[in-house]
Amino acid sequence: MVIGGDAAGMSAASQARRLRGPDDLSIVAFERGHYTSYSACGIPYFVGGEVKDLDHLIARHPETFRAELAIDVQLHHEVIGIDLDGRKVQVRALDTGEERAEPFDQLVVATGAVPLRPKLPGADARGIHGVQVLDDGVALRRRLDDTGPARAVVIGAGYIGLEMAEALVHRGLKVALVERSRQPMATLDPDMGSLVAEALRGMGVELYLGETVTAFETGDGEVRAVVTEERTLPADLVVLGLGVRPNSELARAAGIPVGATGGVVTDQRMRTPAPGVWAAGDCVETFHRVSRRPVAFALGTHANKQGRVAGINIGGGYATFPGVVGTAVTKICGVEIARTGLGEAEAAAAGFEVEAVIVESTTRAGYFPDTTAMQTKIIAERRSGRLLGAQIVGRENAGKRIDALAIAVWNEMTVEEMTGLDLAYAPPFSPVWDPVLIAARKAAERMDQAKPA
Amino acid sequence: MVIGGDAAGMSAASQARRLRGPDDLSIVAFERGHYTSYSACGIPYFVGGEVKDLDHLIARHPETFRAELAIDVQLHHEVIGIDLDGRKVQVRALDTGEERAEPFDQLVVATGAVPLRPKLPGADARGIHGVQVLDDGVALRRRLDDTGPARAVVIGAGYIGLEMAEALVHRGLKVALVERSRQPMATLDPDMGSLVAEALRGMGVELYLGETVTAFETGDGEVRAVVTEERTLPADLVVLGLGVRPNSELARAAGIPVGATGGVVTDQRMRTPAPGVWAAGDCVETFHRVSRRPVAFALGTHANKQGRVAGINIGGGYATFPGVVGTAVTKICGVEIARTGLGEAEAAAAGFEVEAVIVESTTRAGYFPDTTAMQTKIIAERRSGRLLGAQIVGRENAGKRIDALAIAVWNEMTVEEMTGLDLAYAPPFSPVWDPVLIAARKAAERMDQAKPA
Repeated sequence: MVIGGDAAGMSAASQARRLRGPDDLSIVAFERGHYTSYSACGIPYFVGGEVKDLDHLIARHPETFRAELAIDVQLHHEVIGIDLDGRKVQVRALDTGEERAEPFDQLVVATGAVPLRPKLPGADARGIHGVQVLDDGVALRRRLDDTGPARAVVIGAGYIGLEMAEALVHRGLKVALVERSRQPMATLDPDMGSLVAEALRGMGVELYLGETVTAFETGDGEVRAVVTEERTLPADLVVLGLGVRPNSELARAAGIPVGATGGVVTDQRMRTPAPGVWAAGDCVETFHRVSRRPVAFALGTHANKQGRVAGINIGGGYATFPGVVGTAVTKICGVEIARTGLGEAEAAAAGFEVEAVIVESTTRAGYFPDTTAMQTKIIAERRSGRLLGAQIVGRENAGKRIDALAIAVWNEMTVEEMTGLDLAYAPPFSPVWDPVLIAARKAAERMDQAKPA
Repeated sequence: MVIGGDAAGMSAASQARRLRGPDDLSIVAFERGHYTSYSACGIPYFVGGEVKDLDHLIARHPETFRAELAIDVQLHHEVIGIDLDGRKVQVRALDTGEERAEPFDQLVVATGAVPLRPKLPGADARGIHGVQVLDDGVALRRRLDDTGPARAVVIGAGYIGLEMAEALVHRGLKVALVERSRQPMATLDPDMGSLVAEALRGMGVELYLGETVTAFETGDGEVRAVVTEERTLPADLVVLGLGVRPNSELARAAGIPVGATGGVVTDQRMRTPAPGVWAAGDCVETFHRVSRRPVAFALGTHANKQGRVAGINIGGGYATFPGVVGTAVTKICGVEIARTGLGEAEAAAAGFEVEAVIVESTTRAGYFPDTTAMQTKIIAERRSGRLLGAQIVGRENAGKRIDALAIAVWNEMTVEEMTGLDLAYAPPFSPVWDPVLIAARKAAERMDQAKPA
């Protein structure tokens, strides 16, 4: 039995089915929303209109699961309780309100994440939208189409906040972005974050950094303005991009251990400490391979991998999820932003002393048409020179280069060794010294200087 | 003293100067051509007109070396002999024909590569161009501008041959490409090479594969046609892209050891076995980290790195060149082609038994605008699952992804471990399962099947 019909839950179900046929294992999945297996990361592009058709975001419909994989997906059904000893869950049919108990042998908790919402006056007004599940995206796009708002305020300048700001700019709205930190993308180091701020201003977004929202002004049940400590920003539409936390209440209430991150605890095979209970996706905490601490990152790529691992193990195979290095990428109006590993502050919090360098380079040979500047930052442990993290801010062809750095972090390479890496060179792809090599060289030189004579 | 004023030689000179001032070390470099430190890889783009100005290909002029680094660069001077015991070289001034002896303490051999030229009837006719040094590019562009040829034949379908074919298509010529192998890009596996063939035909290039050139037809000293075993191809212009070999004759004649690859032998610090003699760049052989054999790859990125290593060591520092994994990338009319590590045949030649998989995927989320298909091939050792090589053929945003695979090869990762890699995901950059992850997964599944039960 699977609780949650999105990436993690349905990956687990599909993998288990591949290894164990319908005669051997019956699989039922309960999903409280209207959709299964959709790309939540695609919501901003659906709202912005780049993705025209909702259906394009949906990888597989319930009918497909039923017909091709003999997986019984029940939409609009919410699991409201888990009885570990009794081996059953309590399910509520949201359309009728009826409740019933359903037995399980193996249970996959894939309850996802819940968006952070401010508990502020006016927060329930119409026109204030979260963008966490596909239903949210549908509601938001409908409001844009129906009411034609002119002014939007986005609260929170993380990935989702920035992507929504871009989507609304695309739709022709005047967009203000309010962020409590002193920079957008608080997960980037400040020097890289300031490059993102510049880019946002360049595309016409009003940025209010270091400001906290204190209330919403409303009229006739509709939002009219966002109030911060400093000012009142008129708004026909408000989008909340405050991030998410693991949706682990159901598991916690059942006595399944939840970590300090708020995520359900699992081992490497995605097994919770409760016998026969697995967990995967945004609701779990995982292992950060650099900080060596538990972390909870809500990201589709992890959810898919973890779901697959759980499913293989449930199916009688063997698979492990090896943890993460904190890689992420996004693109806002042509500006590509990527990170992996630890930032300077995160590295310090994890007990590392670091040397950090930023190099400006280009995506292609300097003389090649359409070459653009990119900034690459490398964070390395002092003395050992071990690569701890990297960040990139650039334009086209910059962001995905973070993968090379993510794999170097994964393998605990030193910046000295990285100076010799055999990376692909040709003028349309890279200067003869690839940005990664230049950054590694500069960091390695810094290490030399940091060593006692 | 440095022999050869391009990437390797001038990198060595510059690095040595950074560590030892002009009072401590005088540096002279002899270059037989007209230019220093230029991008040979940029020649096709100069010929094709994408790079307008010759000067853009030149990183540093002799005057700059002289003024800023106190390096005495003597252009149009060819070293014609090395006297190891006498610690001097014989130099010929090409403008006057005068010869003189010049003493050295330390010598850097950076003589580059020589293009392979067919010894065939008519091969000396006007209109038959190599494209190895910048002077060649200048001559070729001048011929295009002055004589306006209509039909070109490119001989050899390796990197330079393909890039020149593209350049000539850009210039509006009708282009035929003759290649002795059964596929373009003989360094790719045949299944990937056939994708390149398709792409070439798609851009209007006539492809003659598995054909060898036997002669050139000439008239008035000008080339008129290229003759193969099968046909006669009219030609106003012929470009030779037959590859290069290390230019190691000077070293060999002096008694400096040259390997079976034809490249000068060095240790990891780029020291030849001859005391006080260093070598770097296209003229040396290096270590392939996967086959563990010596190889000679003419590539600017290696030349720069090796030159830098030699220069640091000459300057009293410590640096090593760790070898290569055979990474390369190119782009022909929008088709991006990349490789790293060993291909199937190369792996077999090195004694590996392999499993290989090809997956078709997309560069962005499938539903995202401008997403394009890409093919990723992975070659892994049987049973161990160690990644031995990878190849990519795709369109925009495909080629440079090879870097991630190159670093995985470098670190001797297994395909099983690679299935867990934390690569950057967002819809504009990748499907939720990155092509690298899909390929690794498929290869890992193949390994399971290949294991005895």
